[in-house]
Amino acid sequence: MTLLFCSTTDRSDRWLSELDARLPGLEVRVWPEMGDPADIEMALVWKPPHGLLATLPNLKLIVSLGAGVESLLLDPTLPDVPLVRMVSEGLTVDMAGYVALQVLRWHRLLDEYKALQQAGRWEPLDPCPASEVNVGILGLGELGMASAKTLLSMDYRVLGWSRTPKALPGVESFSGPDGLAAMLGQCDLLVCLLPLTAETRGLLNRKLFAALPKGAVVVNAARGGHLVEDDLLEALESGHIAGASLDVFAEEPLPAGHPFWTHPKVHVTPHVAAITHPSRSAAVVADAITAFREGRPLPNLVDRSQGY
Amino acid sequence: MTLLFCSTTDRSDRWLSELDARLPGLEVRVWPEMGDPADIEMALVWKPPHGLLATLPNLKLIVSLGAGVESLLLDPTLPDVPLVRMVSEGLTVDMAGYVALQVLRWHRLLDEYKALQQAGRWEPLDPCPASEVNVGILGLGELGMASAKTLLSMDYRVLGWSRTPKALPGVESFSGPDGLAAMLGQCDLLVCLLPLTAETRGLLNRKLFAALPKGAVVVNAARGGHLVEDDLLEALESGHIAGASLDVFAEEPLPAGHPFWTHPKVHVTPHVAAITHPSRSAAVVADAITAFREGRPLPNLVDRSQGY
Repeated sequence: MTLLFCSTTDRSDRWLSELDARLPGLEVRVWPEMGDPADIEMALVWKPPHGLLATLPNLKLIVSLGAGVESLLLDPTLPDVPLVRMVSEGLTVDMAGYVALQVLRWHRLLDEYKALQQAGRWEPLDPCPASEVNVGILGLGELGMASAKTLLSMDYRVLGWSRTPKALPGVESFSGPDGLAAMLGQCDLLVCLLPLTAETRGLLNRKLFAALPKGAVVVNAARGGHLVEDDLLEALESGHIAGASLDVFAEEPLPAGHPFWTHPKVHVTPHVAAITHPSRSAAVVADAITAFREGRPLPNLVDRSQGY
Repeated sequence: MTLLFCSTTDRSDRWLSELDARLPGLEVRVWPEMGDPADIEMALVWKPPHGLLATLPNLKLIVSLGAGVESLLLDPTLPDVPLVRMVSEGLTVDMAGYVALQVLRWHRLLDEYKALQQAGRWEPLDPCPASEVNVGILGLGELGMASAKTLLSMDYRVLGWSRTPKALPGVESFSGPDGLAAMLGQCDLLVCLLPLTAETRGLLNRKLFAALPKGAVVVNAARGGHLVEDDLLEALESGHIAGASLDVFAEEPLPAGHPFWTHPKVHVTPHVAAITHPSRSAAVVADAITAFREGRPLPNLVDRSQGY
C-alpha cells in the first residue's frame, strides 16, 4: 500500500521519518512527485489542490493533517472513501493553552499593564475575580472540552454551546439556536472552536455581536470562515466589542494592508493556536492507517453530512 | 472586642461593610483614628508602621491582609500574640492565573507574535510542545500547589522545590540546597512563590541564574526581597536569562527611572498577581476572628521561627 503525502505547509521530511519509525516499509510519495497514480491507496493531506485526489483511481483512505476538514469537503470531486480527521492530544493541549492565554490576557489586563509599564506608571487595576468572568465556548468537541477544563481549573465560569446537547461537569451547556441566544447575552468572552460547516459559516456576524454584552471580547481559533470580518470591524469601531484575538482568517496568510494587522484592539496570530507536530501526531496517523489495513473501525471518521 | 484596621493600600470602606455583614456589632476603628488604644484587642493590617502594634496594651490577635508577613516580622517591637496570615481561595486562584499567564506568554511567544503583527508579517513560529517545557516552582505552599495544578492541566512538565519535601501528583519535587541545584539545571522557566524569610531573601541571585540553563525565563510573584535586581539585569544583559516577569520589587512602587521600567525583556506589573479583595477575603478574616473569640485553633497561624 502506497501513501501520498500532500501539504504545502507541513514538513514532509519530518513526517516521513516519523511515519517510517511507526510503519516501517510503508511506501510514501510526496506530492507533486506521485509516480503511477494507480499505486496510491491512501492520502495524508492538508489542503490538497481540488481535483487532485480524484485522479487516484485506487484511493481507499484519506487522512487529514488538520482537525477541520472543510476545505476537503468543499472539493466537489472528493472521492467517496473514508475520511479521517486529526484528533491528537497534542493539538488539544495546544488549543487549550491558546484559549487560556487569550482569556487571561484580556481578563488580567496584560496589554493595559504593558502600556502602563511603557509609560513608567505604577497603577494597580482591579479586574473582577475569575469566578465572575463568563467565558462562552462555541463548540464542545475535543478542543472545546479541553479548553473548558483548563478555564474551570482557573475558576472561570464556563458556558458552552454545541449543535447537540453535551454534558461536562462545571459547564453550563446550551444547544440549538435558542440556546445560542440564551448563552450569548451572558458572555464576557466568546471563544469560537466550532467545525466549519454550512451551518456555522459566518456565525460570528453582526447579529451575534449585537447579542453579546457591551464590552465583550471575541476569540476565534476555529476557521476564518466563521467570522464576517467587516462585521467585527464595525462592532470594534462602535465599541460594542472591546477586542478580539484572531488566529484564523478568511484569507491566509492575512493579506498585506488588512485592517486587522494594525488594529489596536485585535491580536493577530498566524494560525498557530494548535499545530499538528509530526512528533506528536504521527502516532495518530499510524493508528488510522493500521486500523484501515486491518479492517478495524476507523477512529475520528468524518461524517460528511455533518462536516466533521 | 474592638478591631483596628490599618492599611494604606486596602480600602477600609469596603472592608468595613464586608466585615459588618459577617460580624455584626463588631467595633472597627480605622487607623490613624484609634481612640483609646486600650480598647483594641485585634488588628487587621497590611504593612502597619513599625512600633504601632506595640502601643496597643490589650492586643491579642493580629491578622495580616497579605499572604506574606515578612514586613510584620521585621518589626522588632511586634507584640508576641497570635499572628494569622491571609490564605484565601481567591488569592490562590489569582496567583495560579498570573503564573499560567506568564508561562503561556513566554512559551507561546506572545510578544514575538505581537511584534510580527506590528511589522505586518505572517510568520508561524514553532515553540516546542508544552509537554517538553519544564517549569520549576520555588515554594510549594497553597500558591505553588495551585499554580502547579493549573500548569499540569495544560501539559507542562512541573518541578517544585520547597524547604521540606512535598508530594503532589505529577510534580517532580525537590527540597533542600542539593535539591535546588538539581532542579535549577532543568528549568526552562523558574517561578518564585516562596515566603520571604532569612533563608530565602536574595535567593534569586547571580549564582542561581548561572545554575539555570541558558535562555531560561524568571518569574517573581513572591516578594521583591527574593530578587537581587542588579544580578538579574546582569544575567539579562549577558543573554543567559532570556527574560523576566516581575510583579514585586525591592522598592514599591518601582521607582521612576528604574531600569526594569524600560527593559525590553522585563514585564512589570504593579504587585497585582494576587489581590486580597474584601468581597472574597472578608470571610477568611471573619473565620479567624470567630475562631479566636471562641478559643478554637486558629487557621493559618504563622510560625514565627519559620516566617510563614
